[in-house]
Amino acid sequence: MNKLPVLDDGYVSLVDHFGSDISIIEAARMSTNKGFEGWEKDGKLLRFLWENKHHTPFEMAGMTIEVKAPIMVFREWHRHRTQSYNEMSARYVPLPDENYIPEPGNVHERANAQTGNKQAQGTETKSVTTSQVELWLSELQACYQTAQNVYELGLSLGIPKELARLPVPVARYSRMRASANLRNWLGFLKLRMAPNAQWEIRQYANAVGGLVADLFPRTWELFKAEI
Amino acid sequence: MNKLPVLDDGYVSLVDHFGSDISIIEAARMSTNKGFEGWEKDGKLLRFLWENKHHTPFEMAGMTIEVKAPIMVFREWHRHRTQSYNEMSARYVPLPDENYIPEPGNVHERANAQTGNKQAQGTETKSVTTSQVELWLSELQACYQTAQNVYELGLSLGIPKELARLPVPVARYSRMRASANLRNWLGFLKLRMAPNAQWEIRQYANAVGGLVADLFPRTWELFKAEI
Amino acid sequence: MNKLPVLDDGYVSLVDHFGSDISIIEAARMSTNKGFEGWEKDGKLLRFLWENKHHTPFEMAGMTIEVKAPIMVFREWHRHRTQSYNEMSARYVPLPDENYIPEPGNVHERANAQTGNKQAQGTETKSVTTSQVELWLSELQACYQTAQNVYELGLSLGIPKELARLPVPVARYSRMRASANLRNWLGFLKLRMAPNAQWEIRQYANAVGGLVADLFPRTWELFKAEI
Amino acid sequence: MNKLPVLDDGYVSLVDHFGSDISIIEAARMSTNKGFEGWEKDGKLLRFLWENKHHTPFEMAGMTIEVKAPIMVFREWHRHRTQSYNEMSARYVPLPDENYIPEPGNVHERANAQTGNKQAQGTETKSVTTSQVELWLSELQACYQTAQNVYELGLSLGIPKELARLPVPVARYSRMRASANLRNWLGFLKLRMAPNAQWEIRQYANAVGGLVADLFPRTWELFKAEI
Repeated sequence: MNKLPVLDDGYVSLVDHFGSDISIIEAARMSTNKGFEGWEKDGKLLRFLWENKHHTPFEMAGMTIEVKAPIMVFREWHRHRTQSYNEMSARYVPLPDENYIPEPGNVHERANAQTGNKQAQGTETKSVTTSQVELWLSELQACYQTAQNVYELGLSLGIPKELARLPVPVARYSRMRASANLRNWLGFLKLRMAPNAQWEIRQYANAVGGLVADLFPRTWELFKAEI
Repeated sequence: MNKLPVLDDGYVSLVDHFGSDISIIEAARMSTNKGFEGWEKDGKLLRFLWENKHHTPFEMAGMTIEVKAPIMVFREWHRHRTQSYNEMSARYVPLPDENYIPEPGNVHERANAQTGNKQAQGTETKSVTTSQVELWLSELQACYQTAQNVYELGLSLGIPKELARLPVPVARYSRMRASANLRNWLGFLKLRMAPNAQWEIRQYANAVGGLVADLFPRTWELFKAEI
Repeated sequence: MNKLPVLDDGYVSLVDHFGSDISIIEAARMSTNKGFEGWEKDGKLLRFLWENKHHTPFEMAGMTIEVKAPIMVFREWHRHRTQSYNEMSARYVPLPDENYIPEPGNVHERANAQTGNKQAQGTETKSVTTSQVELWLSELQACYQTAQNVYELGLSLGIPKELARLPVPVARYSRMRASANLRNWLGFLKLRMAPNAQWEIRQYANAVGGLVADLFPRTWELFKAEI
Repeated sequence: MNKLPVLDDGYVSLVDHFGSDISIIEAARMSTNKGFEGWEKDGKLLRFLWENKHHTPFEMAGMTIEVKAPIMVFREWHRHRTQSYNEMSARYVPLPDENYIPEPGNVHERANAQTGNKQAQGTETKSVTTSQVELWLSELQACYQTAQNVYELGLSLGIPKELARLPVPVARYSRMRASANLRNWLGFLKLRMAPNAQWEIRQYANAVGGLVADLFPRTWELFKAEI
């Protein structure tokens, strides 16, 4: 599998897919008892379906992916109830000691964007310095180490895995497979590629979007024009 | 597409599929951070998953089919809310004049099986004769013709298609595509291959089961042992 | 139950409901660990949720209704896969001899609206006359009678109910209960109150909309402003 | 709201419900065009529906609850995709400093039950002592404190809430509302009251089961007889 790297230690990779832009047309043409008639004509039909929110033909294609992401990202991802999930379980296997550490520049930028918004509203004036970001990242990594020590202590003493995991931070990486039809992938992408989605899940959504663009280029073009 | 004939004028055909028996194992192995390890070992895992109703890995495979069936069959089929459907629409295109006519022998057998049940309960004694079945089938076909005449009269007068269809019987054939993951196909088959399912939809379920058997033979074997 | 009449022989009635406009606010306020704070403030929050498509709080309310409608309407209704349904079954009980007969004026108007469209496109010129509509309606009712005769013949001969129903027209009335949360009711109404929905199901959607307006007046106001 | 305490700092409470044991009967009777006829007769019907897995009538009732539970419990809970959720969001509000601390006796018992299993298989011999459990619990609480310090440091420096939360352990309490119909609540309970479910979520499931028992006593009796 070709792994698209996301964040410092995560990835998205394509496992499987079904259907194509043509499958969508064929399914839509069921309603009038016809089939695919070439893109010159059916490019317009695909646009019509998309723009008029005739979404069911987009359920006749789909894909399965594998994802490695921090628990906090999976917490947001799993709120999408139309996908199928199989995830690593800390009840059965100790989670490897891999935790998300954001890049200093990224933290600095997002902190100050937020401060900028608050200054504009007149509610906040302090901006975060580079050394403050570094201090926090250093404390964060020490905290990850402490949590891992307690996790390993528990495991070595014979505390059941399902309890030993209690100190594990939401920054810890986990892995899963996720499968959905194209309509539901596009619903996921619409919410998670949006500017108000958290930056981290947006990186995953962008990678998933890349897979959709490769597999379903005409649908992707219509989707992208709208977001 | 290879059309499997069902009833007097219907069919089931495979449009597309994704995943395999191996995909199911790979998805299940997410939980312990491992992959497929060969059928000697993983045949047991597949059995364990199935027998203990760990159903989510069976969502990592699926298929899309095309179906031609009477409206009365589609009425039962569409109660399965986990499939995706695109069906011919009598609002947009006149439904071709094709109606389900059951075989005389089949009608006779089912009528008398029912009478047998009632006789056993002491509530009914008459059995249906061959000539009564033929009489009814002859009246049925005349009725189909009358309905078609009124349908065509409406269409020719300029009554909108969506209204002109009012006399169309539930025996009229329609066409659709249906897509679902394997877990949901098996849920459909469990209910619709069962002896208490109506004979007509059971014929469609048997044809769908044949497709599942070809594409997912190890899962099918476990399923079949249970029904 | 208070039955709201729809079409010539159908109805919609409220069976049960849960939640309120306030439940929606309370659910949304989970995200910030607060509760309902009065409509002066929370009217704005409800508007924000609606306009920004934060739909999950609208799942914290819902209603169950009973519906009597022609089969052709149920065929469209059951494509909404997020509702729960329990319908009368022609396998277990003979469907009463009640069939939808559209009003002559309504047929005339819809036929000529359609002809008007085609004339504007230069593809059709004939309009339908009042007497043609009456002719068709008269043939339609005779056809209903023929179908009922064949249905009753089959039942009286001992043909199983599930087969005897074959001649029954899609205009035949059936009954069901349907239950959904408010988000899904509003999704149904958006599609089925729209001008391009078939006139018949639109009448049912309008009746359902009336129930929503009574039970969830503030949400209804936001919904109505948008359609 | 009457809060049923669960674990050291969590709860389950009833927010709302709809339907009753009678609603289930009424919905099932749609199929034969009848209504509720008294429990002497309909107690048998309810049993028949349950035992023959006619599940759709159980969708005509439901309840909404509020839950406070550790993130690790919510991670399991949210895999149930047929419930509706609204949860506190660490993107919008700092999560209060409340973390699940298991009882020493409970940890000891579960650790040694597990050791017993492994001894029986000949793969493990050490059992956990009371003082080892106390050591681990003490380290665990220190780790919670470290994580909280880093969380608060980040917040005070102006790191965005969505990033500042990275060190938060999966033992941290969160709150949500959850709504589902009775069929889906029973599906949840079947999996989460089972002996192989994690002890923590089983305590929540038991509390939810208590609510179901109060609201739907006849259904509960059938459910309980089967688990």
